[in-house]
Amino acid sequence: MGLVNGAAQAPAERVPKQDRSRATRQRLLEAAVACLAERGWAGSTVSVVAERAGVSRGAAQHHFPTREDLFTAAVEYVAEERSTALRALFPEGAADRRAVVVALVDLYTGPLFRAALHLWVAASNEDQLRSRVTELEGRVGRETHRIAVDLLNADETRPGVRETVQGFLDMSRGLGLANLLTDDTTRRAGVVTQWAAILDNALG
Amino acid sequence: MGLVNGAAQAPAERVPKQDRSRATRQRLLEAAVACLAERGWAGSTVSVVAERAGVSRGAAQHHFPTREDLFTAAVEYVAEERSTALRALFPEGAADRRAVVVALVDLYTGPLFRAALHLWVAASNEDQLRSRVTELEGRVGRETHRIAVDLLNADETRPGVRETVQGFLDMSRGLGLANLLTDDTTRRAGVVTQWAAILDNALG
Repeated sequence: MGLVNGAAQAPAERVPKQDRSRATRQRLLEAAVACLAERGWAGSTVSVVAERAGVSRGAAQHHFPTREDLFTAAVEYVAEERSTALRALFPEGAADRRAVVVALVDLYTGPLFRAALHLWVAASNEDQLRSRVTELEGRVGRETHRIAVDLLNADETRPGVRETVQGFLDMSRGLGLANLLTDDTTRRAGVVTQWAAILDNALG
Repeated sequence: MGLVNGAAQAPAERVPKQDRSRATRQRLLEAAVACLAERGWAGSTVSVVAERAGVSRGAAQHHFPTREDLFTAAVEYVAEERSTALRALFPEGAADRRAVVVALVDLYTGPLFRAALHLWVAASNEDQLRSRVTELEGRVGRETHRIAVDLLNADETRPGVRETVQGFLDMSRGLGLANLLTDDTTRRAGVVTQWAAILDNALG
């Protein structure tokens, strides 16, 4: 009976602890992305993020031993959340291509892109970050490409289609960059309308 | 005779002094862009640039009273040099569009783009830089657009052509970003080949 009780209690206690731990981790990751987007790499430390998330510095370091761990995990986590949300927007797959183009471009104009941009630019001058961020960029880039191919209903067995989708994603990144210092919404809407038609035609 | 000599000597002395001053200024501007590209904004100070250019800190401050003056002037100067060089590449105007696309994309993969990117990203978090860089980005962007329209022989009186050229320049910026951490030459060549054909078709 003691054993049974003990066995029954242990998982009952463990589950909420895991939940709490997961919730703390998520708060830290979301605070880290917001911090990077607003303050850049130089202003983003584990302490600043812990305070913003309402978590002790010790607890933050339990989850993420180094600053590099925290910020690369944060960008990856938010990118995955965005990917999931994007797929959920078009559950039927092949939807209206213009709507898909707008949703894909939107990926590059919010705080996630801003945070990732700060991380990439810092990594270009910091050896400790560089290999981690390069690997992260590769993973996130491949996943975004897969989503774009699926949602745009692009047939990559046809010559040139792979490069067409890649170039469109490069354009989306460039549109994100153009939105960094000023609100580029109006100009971007015109570019997106025009290029959605060109892309639709190119994908056949 | 004294007056004549004096009058004759003054310009004779003044011209080499102006030349020296202009040469010093150019050395500082080129050193500033190289420094920004290699070390980023955090590692780029007037002292570091002066040393790299072989100029005293005092002389550097005579030309550029503040750090913001030096680095915004540097990005603008090098952008103008690149624009002039780009126009000189195609003196006849309307050339083979694929060659023009390749040359325009090249603008975004060298040290100038890298330097400008560091400046933009720093400006997004630093109020002192922000308005200066926003204004600079506008000027350089308008000039690049004008060059692209001329060299691509694009007729902006036709609906959509302006947005077509804008989107292509956004793509070029995105391709520059993709080249920041890794050598993206091979992938970029495929994208450029495909999109040069799509752009050629879209411009008619």
